[in-house]
Amino acid sequence: MIKEVTLLELVQGDLLKVEQKMRSIGAGTYAPLAEVFLQLLASGGKRLRPALALGAHGLFADQVSEKVIAMAAAVEMLHNATLVHDDLIDNALVRRGVTTLNAVWNKGATVLAGDYLFARAAGFAAETGHIRVVQLFAETLRIIVDGELRQLFSSREWNQPKDAYYPRIFAKTASLFAAATRSGAILADAAPEQEQALDDYGRHLGMAFQIVDDILDYEGNEATLGKPVGGDLRQGIVTLPFFYFLQGHPHPEQVIELLTRGSNGSAADAGPAVADVIAQVRASDAMAQSAAEARDFAERAKRDLALFPDNAYRRALTNLADFVVSRHV
Amino acid sequence: MIKEVTLLELVQGDLLKVEQKMRSIGAGTYAPLAEVFLQLLASGGKRLRPALALGAHGLFADQVSEKVIAMAAAVEMLHNATLVHDDLIDNALVRRGVTTLNAVWNKGATVLAGDYLFARAAGFAAETGHIRVVQLFAETLRIIVDGELRQLFSSREWNQPKDAYYPRIFAKTASLFAAATRSGAILADAAPEQEQALDDYGRHLGMAFQIVDDILDYEGNEATLGKPVGGDLRQGIVTLPFFYFLQGHPHPEQVIELLTRGSNGSAADAGPAVADVIAQVRASDAMAQSAAEARDFAERAKRDLALFPDNAYRRALTNLADFVVSRHV
Repeated sequence: MIKEVTLLELVQGDLLKVEQKMRSIGAGTYAPLAEVFLQLLASGGKRLRPALALGAHGLFADQVSEKVIAMAAAVEMLHNATLVHDDLIDNALVRRGVTTLNAVWNKGATVLAGDYLFARAAGFAAETGHIRVVQLFAETLRIIVDGELRQLFSSREWNQPKDAYYPRIFAKTASLFAAATRSGAILADAAPEQEQALDDYGRHLGMAFQIVDDILDYEGNEATLGKPVGGDLRQGIVTLPFFYFLQGHPHPEQVIELLTRGSNGSAADAGPAVADVIAQVRASDAMAQSAAEARDFAERAKRDLALFPDNAYRRALTNLADFVVSRHV
Repeated sequence: MIKEVTLLELVQGDLLKVEQKMRSIGAGTYAPLAEVFLQLLASGGKRLRPALALGAHGLFADQVSEKVIAMAAAVEMLHNATLVHDDLIDNALVRRGVTTLNAVWNKGATVLAGDYLFARAAGFAAETGHIRVVQLFAETLRIIVDGELRQLFSSREWNQPKDAYYPRIFAKTASLFAAATRSGAILADAAPEQEQALDDYGRHLGMAFQIVDDILDYEGNEATLGKPVGGDLRQGIVTLPFFYFLQGHPHPEQVIELLTRGSNGSAADAGPAVADVIAQVRASDAMAQSAAEARDFAERAKRDLALFPDNAYRRALTNLADFVVSRHV
């Protein structure tokens, strides 16, 4: 059996063009800033979002225009802009093993650096010359930021309903995945039902991806994760494993009581209570229940591709859905 | 002689629509956030930028479409987004006599609130359905942020050349004025030379406006200004009056030496040195020289309107140029 090419392999050549496009912001930018941006881009990530835009577009056309490259760059640049501001908000000093901008620059410069990346991302989106792509871009930014604000304001609300989780991870992750795949379709002049199918695919894939991320936050160990286990809960962010844990607990009110007491006390008090709950979540059925739900979203993503002919792009997108959930099991 | 109507009077009705458009962001927004945004918008400002967009458009058409309202709202929303981040960067607690967002919210929420306004501004720009307007919008945001970064990194560079001042105030103020007037022309399908003339008008007006602002920073008194006299120099920002002062000073190197010593020492040391220089600038010819240069920019703005027929809009835009520089003399 011939090994299938992965999405990242399939779009490798075009991803290099996206990379060049992103690195082009160095030119004409204030020199100290350009240097920092190039470092930031070099520290990388997998470029999954632009790959999704290119992969979705590949279902329709083998040729990739400059406009598609620009859109893929816009999506990744938008993602990086939000990361710069996120790191500032969380006071994170390291991301992907590399020192964050706010660890070396002051608050003001970091805010502006994020703003600058937003501006360049918007500029790339506008380069597509396609107004619906720009509208999608602006609306996605709105959804992402709105979600972050809601998360910030609902921090340490241990007792929130499980239903609050889904819109939150849609905003955080799935909305941009969907924007990537949908815009790939728009720029290929896809039919409305094809465009919708790719929006659905991106959204379902993004939901699966974020649930797995949230599982890994409980499951991993500090060495492989590069951050403390249960970091979300420590920050007051409740995710799917916690919701399932609470649902299956004989006395959920005791768990909430424990966390509330912990988080109202001093930081030193909060540690043991939270660490205790994290250990209980890890050992519970909640982990398997969450994993099953991630797999369910991945299956939905695969079904969303049903109306496309079987080709290398569809197979790569299908396999990606499997890969996303295999990250943890 | 009949009193001329001002630009703000002329576009009053449409400005109300712009206001409604901006206030519409409250709907569908996370409730605590919506409340803060509505307060922010209510604290106002003169809405000069949307008035410029409407005024420029009025030269071509008496009827204002929803698209023009959307663009005017985009310009003002962009302005407000930058103010939210500026106040955070400067740790300002009051603006326009009203408590700033960062005085009541934490850093994270304020960063995100600014981001949210950027997203909505981009959305309004996209509502015009006009890709060149969106491109102009993105490019203007890039210029503004790039300028702020340069200003941040050149703070306390007392010895920078006077020529560095003009690109800085173009980025800070004139670029958005020009984007407002130019987009008014674009949405009226203006001829290229008309579009360019309105870009020039907005830019020259913006330069005049910012120079006057920079003069007022030295000239005002704390009561009317609502902030300490010479606030710019105290923050390490050198503006036109300072450049002219230095140019006319028999020993500019002594002034720079004084400021450098002051700003290298403790905050308590810096005060007297800076206060001394501020008083000298105020008493010097630099004030009149700066005012003459502002008037010169205003005259250029008026000449930029020469190719338009004489009507109420052209007269209002002409008078606005005079008004902008009369704020101080």
